[in-house]
Amino acid sequence: MSRDRLSLNTATCKHLTLAECVEVAKAAGLGAVGPWRDRVAEVGAAEAARIIHDAGLRVSTLCRGGFLTARDDAAAEAALADNRAAIDEAATLGTKELVFVVGGLPSGFAGMGIDHTPADDEDKDLVAARQRVADRVGILAPYARERGVRIALEPMHPLFTADRGVLTTIAQSLAIATDHPADVVGVVVDTYHVWWDPDLEASIAQAGAEGRISSYQICDWTLPLAANTLNSRGYPGDGHIDFPTISRWVAEAGYDGDVEVEIFNEEIWSRPGAEVVETIARRYEELVKPFL
Amino acid sequence: MSRDRLSLNTATCKHLTLAECVEVAKAAGLGAVGPWRDRVAEVGAAEAARIIHDAGLRVSTLCRGGFLTARDDAAAEAALADNRAAIDEAATLGTKELVFVVGGLPSGFAGMGIDHTPADDEDKDLVAARQRVADRVGILAPYARERGVRIALEPMHPLFTADRGVLTTIAQSLAIATDHPADVVGVVVDTYHVWWDPDLEASIAQAGAEGRISSYQICDWTLPLAANTLNSRGYPGDGHIDFPTISRWVAEAGYDGDVEVEIFNEEIWSRPGAEVVETIARRYEELVKPFL
Repeated sequence: MSRDRLSLNTATCKHLTLAECVEVAKAAGLGAVGPWRDRVAEVGAAEAARIIHDAGLRVSTLCRGGFLTARDDAAAEAALADNRAAIDEAATLGTKELVFVVGGLPSGFAGMGIDHTPADDEDKDLVAARQRVADRVGILAPYARERGVRIALEPMHPLFTADRGVLTTIAQSLAIATDHPADVVGVVVDTYHVWWDPDLEASIAQAGAEGRISSYQICDWTLPLAANTLNSRGYPGDGHIDFPTISRWVAEAGYDGDVEVEIFNEEIWSRPGAEVVETIARRYEELVKPFL
Repeated sequence: MSRDRLSLNTATCKHLTLAECVEVAKAAGLGAVGPWRDRVAEVGAAEAARIIHDAGLRVSTLCRGGFLTARDDAAAEAALADNRAAIDEAATLGTKELVFVVGGLPSGFAGMGIDHTPADDEDKDLVAARQRVADRVGILAPYARERGVRIALEPMHPLFTADRGVLTTIAQSLAIATDHPADVVGVVVDTYHVWWDPDLEASIAQAGAEGRISSYQICDWTLPLAANTLNSRGYPGDGHIDFPTISRWVAEAGYDGDVEVEIFNEEIWSRPGAEVVETIARRYEELVKPFL
């Protein structure tokens, strides 16, 4: 079926419940959904798994673990505990891939509404924050491995380095992953976050050769940016990203998994879910699928 | 003199003439200014040179050449002609360094108010746009060399890849520069644009080892972004960038040139020039100079 590899991330239809997302995805012929934890928590992981699998859909990824950059021990322990819970949920949902948004600088915690101290506000040490991510991935990796779940590190656009994710490139994420087996730590290729990377083709090829591509996610870089820069993403084709080229690189790297669509956009959120999913599917068929 | 290496880019005091910028810079004890071409054009390059040199200041850089990504021959020729004029102006001003903002994707021309065609609007080929930059730097390099001017490639934050600058990292800029002598093509280290780069320390070291650091520019990444993302920059210390660390890397790379401050910020533009320059100088003395 032509849309079988396409997956609807629930954040794309922010106002729909998990069951509603599953319904519109199935009706449009998609093969999978990628739920966020808040939508899973509304019904519990076991019931969420039943809803998705009863509809005959796969779970492409679970969003999200991460936020591993806290400086103090108590906050770090709380983050590790929450990530272990996320790993358990992924296992219950029957997905291999748990997406990790790794967290920003301590100096960015205030802007994110994260508990912070005056010392955090002064801490702009990016090198150290990145090292904490590597260290804590190392702590979580055995737990993930035992449960058959992969930590899928998501490099984020440098727009978000200060407040959301200190990993910016696939190469940098692979450098952390390399200390672990390929089925325990992988990387996400999200066009929005990595399209600008001068080393993108080579990094995708390397990730594929290592068997570490956890997910291929598509949404577009549109301009001007929305006032809330987090919600500034567009349908593939509405912005400046070259989807045919990047999709070809992903295919040449040997990736044959799901293609997930995660769009944060106030205007798209205001539209009916069925319309949104149909638009996504048409763009996928035009700009992505022929090149995979 | 403690502020001798500090340079005021005229865009930081957007509403001042060149003569006014020179006056506030000299009064605050700065050693240089970095003029934009519009302020030079108001009086002519020869008179601009006289104003700056009579005040006993250096010209750290001239801003800016570039915008080399046009697809059609006529637009490309016009861009090359304009860049030759900029090179001549730099030579007249007595500065070695002409900063190049290399231009964005053709699909971004419309948003920048650049002449564009329907074919441009569809052109999102980032690999090809980057190659055109390399090719046209090659065309301009002999002209620059004859006049003792260096093409200073400025990698830009990936926020601007689509519309303003397809070069995003120092390493990528060095890969273009390497085809040319070190005194003909260099790179700009602007904290705002490169602070997030996982390879920053190594890339600065390489640029220094090759003798290609054309300019060290400082301004901060503040959040939330301003509605006009171009004008979202802050005084060093007001945002999330680790100036002591990056300044130390620049010093260790052997750079001993000017430290230029270029801040685009509506609030800062609304303040008196003397106040702005004094704030800049104090932040420089606190966060940058001790580490150089």
